[in-house]
Amino acid sequence: MSRRQEIADVAIRLIAAEGMRGLTHRAVDRAADLPEGSTSYYFRTRQALVCATAERLADHTAAELAELESSLTNLDDLVEAAAGLVGQWLTTGRDRQLARYELSLEATRRPELRQALLAGRARLRDMVTRLLDASGVPDADLWAGDLIAYVDGLVLDSLLRPGDRPAEAPDLRPKIRTLLAAAGQG
Amino acid sequence: MSRRQEIADVAIRLIAAEGMRGLTHRAVDRAADLPEGSTSYYFRTRQALVCATAERLADHTAAELAELESSLTNLDDLVEAAAGLVGQWLTTGRDRQLARYELSLEATRRPELRQALLAGRARLRDMVTRLLDASGVPDADLWAGDLIAYVDGLVLDSLLRPGDRPAEAPDLRPKIRTLLAAAGQG
Repeated sequence: MSRRQEIADVAIRLIAAEGMRGLTHRAVDRAADLPEGSTSYYFRTRQALVCATAERLADHTAAELAELESSLTNLDDLVEAAAGLVGQWLTTGRDRQLARYELSLEATRRPELRQALLAGRARLRDMVTRLLDASGVPDADLWAGDLIAYVDGLVLDSLLRPGDRPAEAPDLRPKIRTLLAAAGQG
Repeated sequence: MSRRQEIADVAIRLIAAEGMRGLTHRAVDRAADLPEGSTSYYFRTRQALVCATAERLADHTAAELAELESSLTNLDDLVEAAAGLVGQWLTTGRDRQLARYELSLEATRRPELRQALLAGRARLRDMVTRLLDASGVPDADLWAGDLIAYVDGLVLDSLLRPGDRPAEAPDLRPKIRTLLAAAGQG
């Protein structure tokens, strides 16, 4: 892992814990136990830091989807795998999800961040499209958008439920199965 | 409209424009053209102001759903009405949606706000359940949760798309129709 990736990962944790206002170069230096000025050295502006964090989030998810892609053959497998992945996002990956929504809102006010975020989303949507296509879902691109929207909403709702950092995520398999079953009939 | 409601509406606009960091008592006074100290008089703490804003958002949506409820008889009507409402949220109601997501994220860090927000969500979910039930959807409560999650995800995605404050919202009718058609078969 490069120093830049390390810094972006620390930024993800800071944003999750404190919101966008918690993200400063100095706070990242402290949380990463780096000499003061290190984060500024790698990312001169706040915008550079924020955009790198958005890209890092997309990289993490892309790596997970790539792993998933290698093992799928049909829709049932995909439902299980997708529910398992979303379950991880709600437990050990909770910080990443919180940071992702925070950056999405910040992006509505910052065009450069929006570009970085939309590029990441387009890349992930392409991967989800390939997954659906490989699992026999017709109109895979349209359903990829729907599945992403649905999961985004479910995750946001789950993040709000009492009991921070639950040991077990809710079982989303029936929900994802229903949506993808509708897709399979489409 | 009471002074408290007026203040909450100004808070919604401020949060949408600048994120949670833009919300201070003094900023609300200025934006509402009120004498300094007015917002503090009505809402002593930031927490009181933030919770009142969350309740105001739920009140707005509840009023819209109540209006919708009075005119529905079947699933086709519901699809049209729901798509129309979401279309409003993405154009003239954009600030409310942005503020809603901002408050949702803030709520993951503030238990009192979380309680206010979850109470509002439960109330709106009950209304959506009644709407689906009245339109002949079986398992209306489960589908209400799904529909809300799906719309939450679609709205978040649309807020990110280029072209701030688009004059026209994307046509969500086919998407909502597909989800509710699956529900109708459930």
